[in-house]
Amino acid sequence: MKPEQHDQFTPNSSYTSGLNRVEIQAQDDKHTPPVSALERWLLRKVIREIGDPPLRIVLWDGKELFRTTPEPKTGVIIHDRSALRRLLSKPSLNFCESYCSGDIDVEGELLTFLEIFHQCRLTATADTGIYKRRLADLWGRSNANSLSGSRENIHHHYDIGNDFYRLWLDTEMQYTCAYFPAPDMSLEAAQAAKVDHVCRKLRLQPGETVVEAGCGWGGTALHMAKHYGVNVRAYNISHEQVELARQRAREAGLANQVEFVEDDYRNIQGEFDAFVSIGMLEHVGVEHYRELGDVINRALRPDGRGLIHSIGQTQSAPLNPWIEKRIFPGAYPPTLREMLGILEPWAFAVQDVENLRLHYSKTLEHWLARYEQHEAQVREMFDDEFVRAWRLYLVSSIAAFNTGALQLFQVMFTRPGNNDLPWSRAHLYADKT
Amino acid sequence: MKPEQHDQFTPNSSYTSGLNRVEIQAQDDKHTPPVSALERWLLRKVIREIGDPPLRIVLWDGKELFRTTPEPKTGVIIHDRSALRRLLSKPSLNFCESYCSGDIDVEGELLTFLEIFHQCRLTATADTGIYKRRLADLWGRSNANSLSGSRENIHHHYDIGNDFYRLWLDTEMQYTCAYFPAPDMSLEAAQAAKVDHVCRKLRLQPGETVVEAGCGWGGTALHMAKHYGVNVRAYNISHEQVELARQRAREAGLANQVEFVEDDYRNIQGEFDAFVSIGMLEHVGVEHYRELGDVINRALRPDGRGLIHSIGQTQSAPLNPWIEKRIFPGAYPPTLREMLGILEPWAFAVQDVENLRLHYSKTLEHWLARYEQHEAQVREMFDDEFVRAWRLYLVSSIAAFNTGALQLFQVMFTRPGNNDLPWSRAHLYADKT
Repeated sequence: MKPEQHDQFTPNSSYTSGLNRVEIQAQDDKHTPPVSALERWLLRKVIREIGDPPLRIVLWDGKELFRTTPEPKTGVIIHDRSALRRLLSKPSLNFCESYCSGDIDVEGELLTFLEIFHQCRLTATADTGIYKRRLADLWGRSNANSLSGSRENIHHHYDIGNDFYRLWLDTEMQYTCAYFPAPDMSLEAAQAAKVDHVCRKLRLQPGETVVEAGCGWGGTALHMAKHYGVNVRAYNISHEQVELARQRAREAGLANQVEFVEDDYRNIQGEFDAFVSIGMLEHVGVEHYRELGDVINRALRPDGRGLIHSIGQTQSAPLNPWIEKRIFPGAYPPTLREMLGILEPWAFAVQDVENLRLHYSKTLEHWLARYEQHEAQVREMFDDEFVRAWRLYLVSSIAAFNTGALQLFQVMFTRPGNNDLPWSRAHLYADKT
Repeated sequence: MKPEQHDQFTPNSSYTSGLNRVEIQAQDDKHTPPVSALERWLLRKVIREIGDPPLRIVLWDGKELFRTTPEPKTGVIIHDRSALRRLLSKPSLNFCESYCSGDIDVEGELLTFLEIFHQCRLTATADTGIYKRRLADLWGRSNANSLSGSRENIHHHYDIGNDFYRLWLDTEMQYTCAYFPAPDMSLEAAQAAKVDHVCRKLRLQPGETVVEAGCGWGGTALHMAKHYGVNVRAYNISHEQVELARQRAREAGLANQVEFVEDDYRNIQGEFDAFVSIGMLEHVGVEHYRELGDVINRALRPDGRGLIHSIGQTQSAPLNPWIEKRIFPGAYPPTLREMLGILEPWAFAVQDVENLRLHYSKTLEHWLARYEQHEAQVREMFDDEFVRAWRLYLVSSIAAFNTGALQLFQVMFTRPGNNDLPWSRAHLYADKT
């Protein structure tokens, strides 16, 4: 089965996941005995626990096992008995695993299905937290983000190949939420707007010094140096990212202004006018927030400004176990309250918080569109399962941001008595001079 | 001694508190025996514990007891032995009490003295929290904000007479932090700008409904109704304030749009498009935040927007014991982290936090200037001690905001998956049409 090319794919257009178009083939186990009453009961229970989404369950023989509502909006097709059993033991994890391997399929739009799932989960868990605690028990602890653990976790995701990321990120390769003050702007423009927005919040002046904790392929640091005349020291433990970032700095003639250090944020040295961290906090782990606060306190001058940009949540819940296992080991999106645990021990004063949740949906829609355009190349680089896994990751992230299961917090702060503050935030929105 | 009139007083000009200009009169106890070594040691210890501010101590005989630095910037004059003893037992409380009664005086500017005090306290307590915990033990619990306790606490401050507040508040009588996007605007313009800023953050549309928890003399509710065409139900337990607010609504022809309810926020009834609370949270008490969150969840429609505006802190510490005893019983300025304890149980998503700390310094400078202009009238209404107490309250509040001991947080929120959001905050800063 040759995948369709999606050259006409644009963000916001509806699409069907590759797997949905696969004809359900006759399964080897079509002669297996029917599902037992116990299995049916357990599956019904699992679905009730995630908030009873309006769906139907279809089995390998093409017959419907049950539906949760007279008119289900979506459905799950379970292609074999072992996938059903795995689903009963670890529903979230194994749904995703089986989806990637093709043992489970979704009826209708994958995005709709995942949005319904998130919506039900949010409704079911609001205030009670019971399901989330159960899941937390079930899912177990994530990889520890010790110095060596972090290196391993980051290597897992970010060192799978710069060429792969280049296929679907913007030209500057910024792998974090962009900023779309006008929703129809291009991804490239929105990524530049994000860095500009951050620089304006930090009120960077030429000649000032900035330390960046977690710098990806250097897009933010290079933009700051080029357009704001600052000197940046940027830390990252992803070897592949740092190598490319250094090369880009040399090519842009900015090597004297931007220093890329292949080291952990905990080893930041020096004092700076500004601290910035965009999309690293998700990998830090709440148990290390106090340590991160110590680093910021050590690194920031008395009149310094700081900004942390991170995926977040409205209530504490572990990351989806499949995302945590396959995509982002050791990752956790904090609540805003948890983020303040970084700043409060040193009495940093929050000056500005902005929630950019829907900007991440839009960023992801752009990434997904480019990803689908390059599906064939991804399959050549990796394999079919990888193609499906990365699609599931991108689509489920869109669903999570669209439904509010994930948020995006930009938190700007200073020391408590810093009186060098603008009288309003209008300067963030003034036309550039 | 006739107090000088301060007709020329303008915000930001330096001034000397009335007491500082009083000639230090010969005291009856000038023949009392000298201060003991123990008393001197204890006083030195107290000063060290508050962070060793650079000051000198002068006694009733005009002689200096000691100085903490070769060139002290300020000093404390203790006019009699019993004031010294009271100072040793409960330093913060009794410093203020004795200042009000005239038994203790300050050398130099009162504002400078209080700023130094706050600065030292902040430096001494950053990260350790030891002093604050000791103070918390020392100061004991504030009045409980039960339904009846709140009524008593609010009556203490807000029912001392509308005529008194009219002397020094703006014409609309808004007794909360104003918003000065241009620092030289008038108090009246800045109070109107504050309500406009809040209404824009809430994106109020004509015909929508708003519930206000704690409404003072009705300034915010009336402004919202008049300029944004919304219907407001506003709650307040201060009898004097509600009476005047109702009268103002009738006079403005807004009685059909604004309903003032003399009742506790916990008894809010109905569902609304917006929830707003400006300057009430300080009186709620952290132990009631969960209850307040329940009220907001009950009162807010699924697509509703909420805003809480409150004095805050960067680290948890009890209010100054004198302010808590004499000015605001039961009051406590929360950390932003504590404020999120209102929103997190119901998974409200914070969309925007803005810190308006220096706007409160400026608001207070305006209030103090008007207060000083009307000092003679205040003395006629009350007495000398009241005049000094209120001055101490206003000046110490300026010092607290200037130094960062107090912050001002405006927190705007929605339900987590509300997608009716603007793509940027530029609309807050666009010129009015």
